[in-house]
Amino acid sequence: MASEFPILSADEAAAFIPNGAWVACSGFTSAGSVKNIPLALARRATELHQKNQAFSIYLLTGASSYEAVDGALMQAQAVTYRAPYQSHPAMRIAINQGNVAYREEHLSHFPQSIRSGIMGPLDYALVEVADYTPDGRLTLTASVGATPTFCQCAKHIILEHNPYHAPLKGVHDIYEPNRYPPYDIIRITKPNDRIGTTQLTVDPRKILGVVETYQSEQNPEFKHIDTVYQHIGERVVEFLQQEMRVGRIPQSFLPVQSGVGNLANAILKVMGTNPAIPTFQVYTEIAQDAMFDLMKQGKISFISTCGIYVTDGYQKELYSNWSCYQNRLILRPQEISNHPEVIRRLGLLSFNSALEVDLFGNVNSTHVQGTQAVNGIGGSGDFARNSFLSVFTLQSTAKSGTISNIVPFCSHIDHTEHDTQIIVTEYGCADLRGKSPEQRAEAMIACAHPDYRPILQSYLKQAQQGHISHNLSNAFALYQAYQATGDMRNVNF
Amino acid sequence: MASEFPILSADEAAAFIPNGAWVACSGFTSAGSVKNIPLALARRATELHQKNQAFSIYLLTGASSYEAVDGALMQAQAVTYRAPYQSHPAMRIAINQGNVAYREEHLSHFPQSIRSGIMGPLDYALVEVADYTPDGRLTLTASVGATPTFCQCAKHIILEHNPYHAPLKGVHDIYEPNRYPPYDIIRITKPNDRIGTTQLTVDPRKILGVVETYQSEQNPEFKHIDTVYQHIGERVVEFLQQEMRVGRIPQSFLPVQSGVGNLANAILKVMGTNPAIPTFQVYTEIAQDAMFDLMKQGKISFISTCGIYVTDGYQKELYSNWSCYQNRLILRPQEISNHPEVIRRLGLLSFNSALEVDLFGNVNSTHVQGTQAVNGIGGSGDFARNSFLSVFTLQSTAKSGTISNIVPFCSHIDHTEHDTQIIVTEYGCADLRGKSPEQRAEAMIACAHPDYRPILQSYLKQAQQGHISHNLSNAFALYQAYQATGDMRNVNF
Repeated sequence: MASEFPILSADEAAAFIPNGAWVACSGFTSAGSVKNIPLALARRATELHQKNQAFSIYLLTGASSYEAVDGALMQAQAVTYRAPYQSHPAMRIAINQGNVAYREEHLSHFPQSIRSGIMGPLDYALVEVADYTPDGRLTLTASVGATPTFCQCAKHIILEHNPYHAPLKGVHDIYEPNRYPPYDIIRITKPNDRIGTTQLTVDPRKILGVVETYQSEQNPEFKHIDTVYQHIGERVVEFLQQEMRVGRIPQSFLPVQSGVGNLANAILKVMGTNPAIPTFQVYTEIAQDAMFDLMKQGKISFISTCGIYVTDGYQKELYSNWSCYQNRLILRPQEISNHPEVIRRLGLLSFNSALEVDLFGNVNSTHVQGTQAVNGIGGSGDFARNSFLSVFTLQSTAKSGTISNIVPFCSHIDHTEHDTQIIVTEYGCADLRGKSPEQRAEAMIACAHPDYRPILQSYLKQAQQGHISHNLSNAFALYQAYQATGDMRNVNF
Repeated sequence: MASEFPILSADEAAAFIPNGAWVACSGFTSAGSVKNIPLALARRATELHQKNQAFSIYLLTGASSYEAVDGALMQAQAVTYRAPYQSHPAMRIAINQGNVAYREEHLSHFPQSIRSGIMGPLDYALVEVADYTPDGRLTLTASVGATPTFCQCAKHIILEHNPYHAPLKGVHDIYEPNRYPPYDIIRITKPNDRIGTTQLTVDPRKILGVVETYQSEQNPEFKHIDTVYQHIGERVVEFLQQEMRVGRIPQSFLPVQSGVGNLANAILKVMGTNPAIPTFQVYTEIAQDAMFDLMKQGKISFISTCGIYVTDGYQKELYSNWSCYQNRLILRPQEISNHPEVIRRLGLLSFNSALEVDLFGNVNSTHVQGTQAVNGIGGSGDFARNSFLSVFTLQSTAKSGTISNIVPFCSHIDHTEHDTQIIVTEYGCADLRGKSPEQRAEAMIACAHPDYRPILQSYLKQAQQGHISHNLSNAFALYQAYQATGDMRNVNF
């Protein structure tokens, strides 16, 4: 590899970017994110602010991002607008205080929005690469995200060259749809099909220079799996076994998508230890530690994903045994990992977590008490709507039982009753398929915490008769009781 | 055509069907519905009820249905369960009174649910055919709907032979996906692509007999297009022109989907008379009068649809000039007309109507005041989520201005903020793409009725700050004011 592009310091790279620019950073979670340019950009913002000069950018990434992106830039108060997803505490506060305009978007739709020009004229793409050539062929790192679209649409590209991820060379499958519809058929009929190229080709004239880096994402350890998560995982696997018994899931099983986090890891672990679940393939957006564990154990035979998010110790071990994994993994753009066409064709079994679910099966994934953004919808809508079988999991209560996560009417709705099928808590599995609202409410109450079952029953009793029974005066009474007394159980209809 | 199947009277056909049976009727709207067997079934139910014998069925159709299906069966109190859509006044009342369990479902998902067995073991499929052969090749009539799936899954089939629709021979494109995923690629890359067969092949041993009929659907005339609808149509077309000017819609245009009803017809008519809109193709679920008008005028070059719903006079005229249309039309199963894979690939421009929209772009398509079902979600979710550009249209107010259709928080949500892009009322066009909730609220207020703009502003002022500003105590206050005083304008926060 020989560079014909200027080698820049991170500060030199950051100096290109003016106030008010639309800046897209590579990465899907911390995986594949640029690391040092955003830090330098935050320093630049702080310096300019100290001189009373305005500096703030419109910030796009694939999904959530690396600490340096949302954390440092937010600490420097250098972000005006953010899309399509975030999960950083500082960014979350700024969004909820109204200091950053935040647009959450289905992750599979986001690249189409970028191409349409709706998100502004993209000025800069900052892209982490494991390798590059003078004619503009880039080897990406631990995710693909929306980077192909960013590079196609941005006026300028700055590379951050991070050979730490050199082992990933060859695992990417880069594919960018046409500018306008009609789009071509996406010819993926199994998780291990390739439709693109291992490198991303960009116009080399756009590349302003290269910043040299060598570092991992340093992702923190996952929380130990607690008993409640274990119970939820067991109920999910019981449900899957029953579906196999009655012939609704074939004996050969179906490819699996699993959301991000501890609950998702718990479900995978229970699946891994249950002999009734055969070896399966994964078609997902993020591959976590638990998936590679199951690959080692022979339970997972192939992983198609948009990004690899593993804890730091795990990543070192992965790369030191990389030959065991590299032929059983594909990294795809988020538009393809989350594409309705592929998700529906493959017939995924999808597992995602919910914040709260209402009596009729509407799911809130994003906003506490209807107002406070947590993260964003991410890929949950892509998978929940289009999978063959979609499962939402959640604990029945939060905050020591003072909050019920099963409520009469969700304070925010991300997945409607039309999009949800199976809801699992530690108390049971509500199979909502084919059910009327009245039947759904009965199933949901059965998996609520016992303290809340009579409360939810009495909500229905005082509700107005209709296809869906509600009393709009009391629909949010549980939240009001919590705000007034600190405990939803004090509600009085 | 020579029948080897018994010729039955409608009453003889109805006599096969026992109490508690799962019965699927062909049809997608009244188009393609069986006509006389359900009438006979209603008579049978009434007779049995007079003898104090129970008789009630689980009723499935493609979408809404013919008068005889939902009307007569409901009048006979002979329906226990209904899916996936209905639009009949008597059925609506029964559903809202809790007398019929009703499950609305995305129309593209419904056949998959049938195949999975979730909707019970299907006992009888009652199917209107224009023609049939002794070895079980059926020529369907004015829709395909879910009939291929019904015939595949049902234990028994009874045909209603209606040669009135004989001109339709050859326009169907019958295609049934596999029982289990992975499904095959759906190789439609333009609205006029064919992927299946013109006839539906069923197991002839399932066919119990044939009832002879000769009649049209006798669909009533559409309402005259009023000024408000005309204004909304003009605003939609202004928006499309602007999108073409800035290059977000290509000059060659994109295929169009349009919902059912007077507002949809109004939009099509305005598109038809505007020279800036080029000749286009249609990929939709229902083709109405206005589409055939535009085909006659040369504005529409091809129609792919699941069903043809035209008024009675129009249908006679269509068939008398059928040679002008028959090569420019394909009738597809609802699973394909509404399939996410195809909708996204073709990049549709979709137009659907909403009951109400909230400040943040959530759309209610189905339930008045959150409880009273109107029709159902139908195909609106399939199209709104997956189209290249999705437009929801509605009048800003209802009931002489006493109800605002722009509200703080929708009383029911069918399409979330993540799925909506453009909202058009007679007062303006809210372009919600890429916008944060705060920016969305501003755009929505601008297209609310002027009487309600200060009310919606004051809702936001007293709301709790957050990514989304709400006050859950007052989120439904407009409905409460309407219930108490008959006018939402009397709300007081």
